[in-house]
Amino acid sequence: MRVVTSTGSMQGLALGWKRRGNRVGLVPTMGYLHEGHMSLVRRARRWVGAEGKVVVSIYVNPTQFGPKEDLSRYPRDMTRDLGMCREAGVEVVFAPTDAGMYARGRVGEAHSTYVVEETVSQRMEGAERPGHFRGVTTVVAKLFNLVLPDVAVFGAKDYQQAMVIRRMVRDLNFGVRVLVAPTRRERDGLAMSSRNGYLSEGEREQATVLWQAMGEARRIVRGSRGGVPASRLSRELTRWMERRPAVRVGYVAFFDPETLEPVERVRAGVQMALAVWVGKTRLIDNSRV
Amino acid sequence: MRVVTSTGSMQGLALGWKRRGNRVGLVPTMGYLHEGHMSLVRRARRWVGAEGKVVVSIYVNPTQFGPKEDLSRYPRDMTRDLGMCREAGVEVVFAPTDAGMYARGRVGEAHSTYVVEETVSQRMEGAERPGHFRGVTTVVAKLFNLVLPDVAVFGAKDYQQAMVIRRMVRDLNFGVRVLVAPTRRERDGLAMSSRNGYLSEGEREQATVLWQAMGEARRIVRGSRGGVPASRLSRELTRWMERRPAVRVGYVAFFDPETLEPVERVRAGVQMALAVWVGKTRLIDNSRV
Repeated sequence: MRVVTSTGSMQGLALGWKRRGNRVGLVPTMGYLHEGHMSLVRRARRWVGAEGKVVVSIYVNPTQFGPKEDLSRYPRDMTRDLGMCREAGVEVVFAPTDAGMYARGRVGEAHSTYVVEETVSQRMEGAERPGHFRGVTTVVAKLFNLVLPDVAVFGAKDYQQAMVIRRMVRDLNFGVRVLVAPTRRERDGLAMSSRNGYLSEGEREQATVLWQAMGEARRIVRGSRGGVPASRLSRELTRWMERRPAVRVGYVAFFDPETLEPVERVRAGVQMALAVWVGKTRLIDNSRV
Repeated sequence: MRVVTSTGSMQGLALGWKRRGNRVGLVPTMGYLHEGHMSLVRRARRWVGAEGKVVVSIYVNPTQFGPKEDLSRYPRDMTRDLGMCREAGVEVVFAPTDAGMYARGRVGEAHSTYVVEETVSQRMEGAERPGHFRGVTTVVAKLFNLVLPDVAVFGAKDYQQAMVIRRMVRDLNFGVRVLVAPTRRERDGLAMSSRNGYLSEGEREQATVLWQAMGEARRIVRGSRGGVPASRLSRELTRWMERRPAVRVGYVAFFDPETLEPVERVRAGVQMALAVWVGKTRLIDNSRV
């Protein structure tokens, strides 16, 4: 396994693969890897085959964090990450530096180009985290140009992100197939996330509300005739979750799984997503109702 | 020579070239080709060599035109363009349709991703034509992903555009070398442009003011001690040009050739650019002072 930190070397390597006809799969991560990430790696491997190359990028991208968010305390453990990638048979870990990714020169020469998606990215995470998706689309566009993947694998846990990336790929004609792999969960249903490590023991217990609320929504909708008004269901679930002392709900949203347009009535087949603060930790999750 | 109109076919062709190691040069145009464009084609050919592939894209990109601009009356002559490309030994003319370039589907599925450059694109053309460069960077990013060029050639006549593209390539890590080829001029100095065809005979004569004003600026600066204040020089040249009845000046700008930051004092080595209406036709030009 090779660890590449220079953007130039990464692109050179990728060009060589292209020339030799190797299929390339990219798994973009912010590191602090867990079983969720490794399931994406396995998905990439299945797609590119034994002759193909799997690249895991590990980069805590500053442009997708808001000024009050957890950029500086975001968990990192490169040694452990590299061990996991090696064990999984990854060919290249691409771990660039901030200076390499976002050019800084004399005045007026700082990084100044962004990729913006203006529809799918507007609600939910986009509304609660202004600038977040602009950072995501920009860094993913950069990674695509540096790694030149045939396929890139994203986790379904970040559902809106995956849809935003799909839209970007379509609109900017990136020759990349975007795969979305199912969310991996702990035994009690909590979606795996590097941010789960922030939770205290008591908070960790309360964090199961996201999973439970989604089950609750499914039960309510399936028990109804012709669905339930989205606003009422959202209010009810919010109240229900906030009975736990550490829990504060950001949003509970119901929408079309393709266009991400909100629906008025929640029926089976509608997508739901929620963002919930548990103490000082913000968690998100989603599922089909 | 092959004429490709489908984005999928273009990308497939380009991927094949990449796999076979052919160098690819792209000359993005809006068609209605003239000797200026053909000089870009020759530059691309020199760079990719006889074994390489030269692609000329012909596409009047709607997203770079403002609502009151000349999109609908922009001159077109595909038959003549194809003849010129064939004669110049171009391998592929890529002439996509609007529907192919900007996906339109059911509500909420229209094209929604843009590339924005936020520094170099702000003044001059960016200030006078809001949204123009957003359209340019977006379509060029799309063309880069569809044609996968090793090199792309732009004309120095659109100086700011070339600098915006360079910035985009650097910031988004496109593996494309951007070449800027010198402006081709008519005998009386007028920069070649597809828009020159809009000019009446009288206007065509007055259009030489752009070239003359740049010479005048050079003379004034070289005759000065330590340069001339930019604001004064800009005012003087504006007054001088507007003595012609059909002429109205948009801007006369003096700036650092790399960062495009305006300068206070104009010395040799400063870049100048100007936009001038001659009747209803907007012309731009630029040169080193």
